Amino acid sequence: MKISDTNTNILITGAGLCGALLGLRLAQRGYNVNVLEKRPDMRTKIVDAGRSINLALSDRGLSALKMVGLGDKVKELCIPMKARMIHPKDGKVLTSNYSGRDDDYINSISREDLNKLLLDKADEYKKVQIDFKREITSVDLRQGSVDYKNLEDNQIKHWNPDILLGTDGAGSRVRAAMARQRDFFFSYTTNWLPHAYKELRMPPADDGGWRIDKHALHIWPRGGFMLIALPNLDGSFTMTLFMRRKDSPHSFEEITTDDQVTEFFKEEFPDVYDQIPDLLEQYQRNPVPPLGTVRCSPWAAHGKVLMMGDACHAIVPFYGQGMNAGFEDVLVFDQILEECEDWDDAMNRFSIERKPDTDAIADLALDNFVEMRDSVSHPNFQTKRAIEMKLESAFAKEQYSSKYSLVTFPPEGMGYREAMIKGRAQDKAIIWLIDNNLISVDDNAESLLAAINKKTEEVIWHRN
Amino acid sequence: MKISDTNTNILITGAGLCGALLGLRLAQRGYNVNVLEKRPDMRTKIVDAGRSINLALSDRGLSALKMVGLGDKVKELCIPMKARMIHPKDGKVLTSNYSGRDDDYINSISREDLNKLLLDKADEYKKVQIDFKREITSVDLRQGSVDYKNLEDNQIKHWNPDILLGTDGAGSRVRAAMARQRDFFFSYTTNWLPHAYKELRMPPADDGGWRIDKHALHIWPRGGFMLIALPNLDGSFTMTLFMRRKDSPHSFEEITTDDQVTEFFKEEFPDVYDQIPDLLEQYQRNPVPPLGTVRCSPWAAHGKVLMMGDACHAIVPFYGQGMNAGFEDVLVFDQILEECEDWDDAMNRFSIERKPDTDAIADLALDNFVEMRDSVSHPNFQTKRAIEMKLESAFAKEQYSSKYSLVTFPPEGMGYREAMIKGRAQDKAIIWLIDNNLISVDDNAESLLAAINKKTEEVIWHRN
Repeated sequence: MKISDTNTNILITGAGLCGALLGLRLAQRGYNVNVLEKRPDMRTKIVDAGRSINLALSDRGLSALKMVGLGDKVKELCIPMKARMIHPKDGKVLTSNYSGRDDDYINSISREDLNKLLLDKADEYKKVQIDFKREITSVDLRQGSVDYKNLEDNQIKHWNPDILLGTDGAGSRVRAAMARQRDFFFSYTTNWLPHAYKELRMPPADDGGWRIDKHALHIWPRGGFMLIALPNLDGSFTMTLFMRRKDSPHSFEEITTDDQVTEFFKEEFPDVYDQIPDLLEQYQRNPVPPLGTVRCSPWAAHGKVLMMGDACHAIVPFYGQGMNAGFEDVLVFDQILEECEDWDDAMNRFSIERKPDTDAIADLALDNFVEMRDSVSHPNFQTKRAIEMKLESAFAKEQYSSKYSLVTFPPEGMGYREAMIKGRAQDKAIIWLIDNNLISVDDNAESLLAAINKKTEEVIWHRN
Repeated sequence: MKISDTNTNILITGAGLCGALLGLRLAQRGYNVNVLEKRPDMRTKIVDAGRSINLALSDRGLSALKMVGLGDKVKELCIPMKARMIHPKDGKVLTSNYSGRDDDYINSISREDLNKLLLDKADEYKKVQIDFKREITSVDLRQGSVDYKNLEDNQIKHWNPDILLGTDGAGSRVRAAMARQRDFFFSYTTNWLPHAYKELRMPPADDGGWRIDKHALHIWPRGGFMLIALPNLDGSFTMTLFMRRKDSPHSFEEITTDDQVTEFFKEEFPDVYDQIPDLLEQYQRNPVPPLGTVRCSPWAAHGKVLMMGDACHAIVPFYGQGMNAGFEDVLVFDQILEECEDWDDAMNRFSIERKPDTDAIADLALDNFVEMRDSVSHPNFQTKRAIEMKLESAFAKEQYSSKYSLVTFPPEGMGYREAMIKGRAQDKAIIWLIDNNLISVDDNAESLLAAINKKTEEVIWHRN
């Protein structure tokens, strides 16, 4: 199938964040695009996505949105978060900027608002058709075709497009079909954390404003578990409690009765307890979704089918990169379409070239859970951050960026994998230099940078 | 279920190497043991196991065989292999001992002979009953029960034991049941190598002897692919060609016709080509099984079911440890049964404590494929081995053992994980010391050991 042939019929399974952006982009490229979405249209019905209510949108995701011409529009939905605000048990709040550069910050955004923005934009293109309440019931990888059920009338229909793109999320039917088939060897991993999460809403203050600092991502790190909060435009915060499912006194299995919940919050999050009048109702009502990592290979099949986003690389949320990685998929795939002639080549290239980066962000996201839960405990944490701030404000991105910045505010063209390798070595180097009293915040930026770069190189060598 | 209660009825799925040893050991402990095996009894029928014909039995496996009283008997089936014999293309054969200690060697053994030995020994115990041609058709994890088909009369029967132990290999039905259920979160990985293998038989010489050195494991390393050979008691060798399935001129997809096979062997393995008169018939007839790694967690379910061996940790064959790891499972589980009161605790403890070691040998086995394929190419390989030989002959196991020895001839009580961490760091340290001309074979053993230990510590620090 020639990429240049815009008569190509493309079917996308799933109109979530990744699928909607992908459909929009391919319509902009002039293809005939159809999208099948199991859920009702969130613009006409209230849809419980059963997924996180708000998300952190950062540079990688923004680049993809700029590509489709939504760079400015999306800003209206964003609440900039310039810092982590860490709430220790003793209440002495610690603020830690995400970057030493003022224009580097992450954005709190509503999943629903962003998804609607993408759907509305897609509707501007005659060549894209999105059908809701259509559930995929089976996938034929060789044909690149699907059967789907119209949830309005329960009729099963068959659809055989030229190209089938699976953006049907972590529970992907397309991936399931790949795991079942025997035409090629499909490697796959599903890894569950012992932790799950529960979302809670902190309502606006009586004056309609935000009860805690609006321009920060709030963290209550407690070691084995933690609470976080991201702001919403309506003055509320969406809080997420991450805790073990079982095998701990601090687990969803052990903390169930109203008394237990009350005691737990009064003990662990006293400042929060006062801010959520209907805490108990929410805690008892809201679900406890699991947290998992999905990896697989290949992502492409028979030159007709390709997966993107969570369908082939679902990750845990602790680096705030799940959506950004899915959006970056679309950006990377768009570039590959520029460079290839055939869909077959493009899909195989994407499958091979993109995977090392999504494997890396999967690992980084797992690491970061520990870092967030313990973020105040490391004695040199603040010294390290102070040194990194100093360097980031003194030098350009390309000269120095912390691991967090390499991942979240990347220098031009740096993928997740390169960010991981460099960032991890740098972290280790800085901690070692501090522990051995070889650097201090008061050193001048040039000598700090030189010492850190030297030790970083050494660590990278030892690790490889 | 109390471990002390020997009236406990235990059902084992699979009478392969691990299942037969496990059944034997549990019978020795006095339990009522039943084993269901899909295949016919290999002692009465010729069974194409569809798996490697001979294997490398080493210390970890031998310890388990000693536990059940087969330490001496098994020796009669073993052909000691004291060295790797490496056959470069130019024909100048290089011999590299496995250890600097004379009593440390691996053994070539027939999978079938060893399995028969275990089955015969098990038959000596009235309390163990092994039924062949019984195929598990479904597994109920909550009940700890199975349905199975009697392949003689195709009747389906139900069996509900007190304890269900799954030793049904890499394609485990028990593991499949765990992946399907939703009572608990089951993490699982299946990873396929791009390489597959084909076995070929080098017949005995005309005088009935072995055509190449009997007491070595032979390797023809060729970078992207390799050929190996293990001796059999009848004077033949079982050779295994490891090569990519596709995407290379040297792949099973590209080398198919008689002419291609002939040209390939004449070019790459000229010394072997002359030794296998019916090479073409064998190449065209023999299957090309894939090579995969299976990991999962947990191994235990509902206090009634536990997996062991390949069922929960199948690995690639390049460290010769697959069978040894399965046998060591039985040894480790036997010790845990000594220390626990309830089956539930014992099974959970095994699942949690054993996994880090089987994860480690899975990684080591993958690493070793690269090492074997390239083993002559590294300039300092021979110097490194010479230094390690010198240290192993000079010091006790506990003072110095190479990575290979730590894994294969372990110091008392050293698991795979500890062997991996120490062995990898040691390898890196020695290569670095050689590359920087800081050590040489002529140094005295004490100073060599001191330098290597110091650098090894440094590498371990950097890696953690």
